[in-house]
Amino acid sequence: MFNLVSHGHPSKIPSCVRSLGFRGYVYPDVLTPPQSSISSTESLVISDPDFQSEDLNFLSRSERYDAAVKKSAQMILKLREYGISDPEEIYCYKSCVHRGRAEPLDLHLAMFLPTLLNQSSPEQMEKFFIPAWNLDIIGTYAQTEMGHGTHLRGLETTATYDPATQEFVLNSPTITSIKWWPGGLGKTSNHAIVLAQLHTQGKCHGLHAFIVPLRSMNTHIPLPGVVVGDIGPKFGFDEVDNGYLKLENVRIPREHMLMKYAKVEADGTYVKPPSAKLTYGTMVFIRSMIVGEASSALAKSCTIAIRYSSVRHQSEIRPGEPEPQIMDYQTQQYKLFPLLATAYAYKFVGQYMNQVYHRITGDISQGDFSELPELHALSAGLKAFTTWTASEGIEVCRMACGGHGYSRCSALPDIYVNFVATCTYEGENTVMMLQTARFLIKSYQQASAGHQLSGIVSYLNESERRLQPQSVSSRPTVVNVNDLASLVEAYKLRAAKLVEVAAKSIHQELQKRVSQEDAWNNSAIDLVRASNAHCHYVVVKLFAAKLGEIGDTGVHSVLSTLALLYALQGIQQHSGDFLQVTTTMLSQVSQRLKELLAQLRPNAVALVDAFDYCDEMLNSVLGRYDGNVYEHMFEWARRSPLNKTEVHESYHKYLKPLQAKL
Amino acid sequence: MFNLVSHGHPSKIPSCVRSLGFRGYVYPDVLTPPQSSISSTESLVISDPDFQSEDLNFLSRSERYDAAVKKSAQMILKLREYGISDPEEIYCYKSCVHRGRAEPLDLHLAMFLPTLLNQSSPEQMEKFFIPAWNLDIIGTYAQTEMGHGTHLRGLETTATYDPATQEFVLNSPTITSIKWWPGGLGKTSNHAIVLAQLHTQGKCHGLHAFIVPLRSMNTHIPLPGVVVGDIGPKFGFDEVDNGYLKLENVRIPREHMLMKYAKVEADGTYVKPPSAKLTYGTMVFIRSMIVGEASSALAKSCTIAIRYSSVRHQSEIRPGEPEPQIMDYQTQQYKLFPLLATAYAYKFVGQYMNQVYHRITGDISQGDFSELPELHALSAGLKAFTTWTASEGIEVCRMACGGHGYSRCSALPDIYVNFVATCTYEGENTVMMLQTARFLIKSYQQASAGHQLSGIVSYLNESERRLQPQSVSSRPTVVNVNDLASLVEAYKLRAAKLVEVAAKSIHQELQKRVSQEDAWNNSAIDLVRASNAHCHYVVVKLFAAKLGEIGDTGVHSVLSTLALLYALQGIQQHSGDFLQVTTTMLSQVSQRLKELLAQLRPNAVALVDAFDYCDEMLNSVLGRYDGNVYEHMFEWARRSPLNKTEVHESYHKYLKPLQAKL
Repeated sequence: MFNLVSHGHPSKIPSCVRSLGFRGYVYPDVLTPPQSSISSTESLVISDPDFQSEDLNFLSRSERYDAAVKKSAQMILKLREYGISDPEEIYCYKSCVHRGRAEPLDLHLAMFLPTLLNQSSPEQMEKFFIPAWNLDIIGTYAQTEMGHGTHLRGLETTATYDPATQEFVLNSPTITSIKWWPGGLGKTSNHAIVLAQLHTQGKCHGLHAFIVPLRSMNTHIPLPGVVVGDIGPKFGFDEVDNGYLKLENVRIPREHMLMKYAKVEADGTYVKPPSAKLTYGTMVFIRSMIVGEASSALAKSCTIAIRYSSVRHQSEIRPGEPEPQIMDYQTQQYKLFPLLATAYAYKFVGQYMNQVYHRITGDISQGDFSELPELHALSAGLKAFTTWTASEGIEVCRMACGGHGYSRCSALPDIYVNFVATCTYEGENTVMMLQTARFLIKSYQQASAGHQLSGIVSYLNESERRLQPQSVSSRPTVVNVNDLASLVEAYKLRAAKLVEVAAKSIHQELQKRVSQEDAWNNSAIDLVRASNAHCHYVVVKLFAAKLGEIGDTGVHSVLSTLALLYALQGIQQHSGDFLQVTTTMLSQVSQRLKELLAQLRPNAVALVDAFDYCDEMLNSVLGRYDGNVYEHMFEWARRSPLNKTEVHESYHKYLKPLQAKL
Repeated sequence: MFNLVSHGHPSKIPSCVRSLGFRGYVYPDVLTPPQSSISSTESLVISDPDFQSEDLNFLSRSERYDAAVKKSAQMILKLREYGISDPEEIYCYKSCVHRGRAEPLDLHLAMFLPTLLNQSSPEQMEKFFIPAWNLDIIGTYAQTEMGHGTHLRGLETTATYDPATQEFVLNSPTITSIKWWPGGLGKTSNHAIVLAQLHTQGKCHGLHAFIVPLRSMNTHIPLPGVVVGDIGPKFGFDEVDNGYLKLENVRIPREHMLMKYAKVEADGTYVKPPSAKLTYGTMVFIRSMIVGEASSALAKSCTIAIRYSSVRHQSEIRPGEPEPQIMDYQTQQYKLFPLLATAYAYKFVGQYMNQVYHRITGDISQGDFSELPELHALSAGLKAFTTWTASEGIEVCRMACGGHGYSRCSALPDIYVNFVATCTYEGENTVMMLQTARFLIKSYQQASAGHQLSGIVSYLNESERRLQPQSVSSRPTVVNVNDLASLVEAYKLRAAKLVEVAAKSIHQELQKRVSQEDAWNNSAIDLVRASNAHCHYVVVKLFAAKLGEIGDTGVHSVLSTLALLYALQGIQQHSGDFLQVTTTMLSQVSQRLKELLAQLRPNAVALVDAFDYCDEMLNSVLGRYDGNVYEHMFEWARRSPLNKTEVHESYHKYLKPLQAKL
């Protein structure tokens, strides 16, 4: 039985935990658990008086961190009390407790434990995993440094083996080598897995992982040579103590290097790992989680903005008539309905990625990994594509709520600042787009060399490319604005064209006798555009494919409308990319879009209700299910800290004396 | 002599103050004072030990408010001490003290005093202006209600005249009528000018302004019937106590109605104001300020991101070579250089609006106001156009700084949350765009009816429109990607086309026999697009015009590059709108853009240095002039509140007991 808080021996840990380890839930709180367990866990947590707290918006950062640690500690006790043991249930519980926010123990649960599980020798399992399992050891995963994030080879922390004492000596040799950003590192953790360049027998063997004790197990005071603390306030993530770590000749026993694969023997001999590990799978999994999170963040934002737009009355459309709901303004519909469609689209994309990942890795030993490189390459771009558009979308939702959207009571500022970090972490988005582009260009070149491509990039095959329009004059006018299949085709041609443009740019650069690398950099804008178009095509294609799975005619009808809206809006926004879309066709697109907005209007609230966020999880005064916005906004404001006293102390300190002096 | 803190009689207040009143500095801190005075005031304030404070990011909201009140009070004393009396100097001083942030006394200075000045009877000047001048009365301007912002006619607060006692009885009859948002209302002000529907002799006469005492002059405790407080935390504006105000049968003497224009006589007889006031001018002025602020916010963000991109080294372009500055990546240049160009463009647009405004209103009595309606209509759109794009641009700058951009030490989160509010206040952006569209459609219809338009909309004249391309086949290929004048022409044709599309949509709707109002609403998407294109044209046109004024060849050359970059990037992003831009031409645009980026690369840092923000004003670790980023990031982090103790109290409260229990 899986029990996070038991004293069980690791050998008793079942396969589901190992799969947890393998799957590497870096962002466990974004996991979408099965619907059935959500509601029961949700109501369990929401009704629990121990998890009630003041609105986090009213607290200082230190208080928010404090409240989060309190909840996490409470949670551990409750899980034991209720005997909750299924990992998905645990993560669902955790997500309810922290309302989907990141929390101080995230990296302990999602990186520290799984890494121990995957990379420990049997002795290390005994020595570290059990205490970590019991939360005596609280750990984090310290990889990123002040000077290096994405480029791992550039990391500077060193671990130099000293055979005289059989110890590694860890150092942060420069200011830029200070570990920076790991969650839970600042104040919570007493251990860290530190990634460092391994030096032994006068040679550097690259990055390896070391278990480094940071704080006394008794007093929690930092150990000698360990300079550790919080990196200070951020845009969001107020509950997490992202930390810094400067190591000054910190000595750890040889056995603290994670030695399941690579090893350093007592005399300092380095033993290479048997083979490079397959890390593709984990990355695909994490990215599918982030795409899912993009969908959730946008779904929450749409829920708030669309419900509020049905409550808010303003101005007039027709003179003399009562003020309409702002949802009746075409511009408001044009802001929100395409985002609603996007939230649905990304949900299906996340599901698809997750399914493919599980299908491929379902039985690791016999898995057919042939699809994995393509999915891995695609997942980088989809992570970037969805997080960029979702981030922008959240802000559109916030501004669509007018002034009240700017209040923290709307929850939208909070959703934004916490979600937008996904554009930067787990691979900076532009870097991700260029990774996808690398795969696209490689595929294009293979096709050009006569290879027949399969899978999602098969549109790059020569035969298909020959069918593409080459010039304006030969543009076929085949796009049917009412037919999703025809629109998918249009997106495909756009992607094919933009991949070709990028490939040609590289070719032209090479002809100028610049190096391969400079040719790549000098074509980077085109490459990112190509990746964007490719991802957009995939999203539209998957949305269309999803419709085929839906039996219920009512659901099918409304989702078809959403899919059409999504596809047409993309064409309108990027019309210059769609060569076969003529001016006449564009005005059809524009007309059809307006019709679709009007068609969706009656279903808009139902479509956000279907996301099924309870008020406690949304935590938005504007997005309340009962629509009773204004009373609760007043009530919320009155509870805010500045209203604790009728007269703020600053009056007595500064204004009153000033008035007396003048 | 103008002295904000003197005991001077109003008759002694010079004309410059009256002009201050007329100009209505709602956002005085965005005022760009003459270069000469900036540096001296700046160094005066920055070196003043009384204005040093802990980094605001480290304080709770209540502490931030407290610190702001303290600074404002100090400032008042210093101004008197130094005898600073020129209004522009005062506002420059204030901006330095508060580092460009909004502060609790803003509405007192920018709305309360000027409104008293403009709308008081002589007796009211005596009774209210002098004490307000001396800061015994601290006031705010309470217009917006919980249920109504943009739509003023919908405001619900009532002021009912009671002839028996010669008093007005003020009420907030509904929850939605509670005043909401006014700055300084929550805790700071003891008075407010309240906008309310005036009822007398059984009739409603619409909105009028009333001076309402809110708090005791001795104790600062709210008066009976006055429910007042802070509206709670927001996305930004942490220093300002935006407030709520609920009035419950609050009685004020008849003389508290601002009676310079409209009057209520003792018996309750209502006397209409002699004529509707010209408020166009003030609005144009405020919007020119906001456009200037868009430029500043973007200029600051570019300064931070471009300097940091020259400090940060990452990854590799060419294998084996040292890690390049991230500024050398084409994608990084493509993110930042167009924004740099935009910051310059908006600076010129703001200057133009300000100049036209001053030219028109230079001598009020003899002013030629014929240009004002056009400028007023244009200013609405430009406010929306520039604030939307600048807001997005700030976030692009932030994300271009990678993970460190997400830290509050970058200052970019702060710039964003404070600036993005401009998209919503002073007229919600979509509403602003539709105002501009109304002028464009009116102009289009006049031209269609044979009137000859002059000014900036003259491109809508029939004769010019006939020269436009009507179909794809007849597209003239006249755009020269190296010639700014040719690009201005392309933007003009795009605007003309999109205004026509919107006008035709309205026409088509009317043919379906819908009402004028529904036709307008059903064309709103097209109308906003038309306004956008119009504003974009104006910006490109003004940028091109500015080049003509520049004599220095070096400056002219680099600004020409920026202008070309700005114009070409817009074409690339909206290529579908530019009918005469063919596929071949687009690839020329794309090629030319890349060349311009490379051309700007060596000048990028100098171009942001030219904005001349000192480190103290930027307050960004990443944007430091000396480039010494990492040391200072570490130092900043160590000062943050969570590091005040080595062990956070939550360890003792929650983690230690948990470990003991397990």
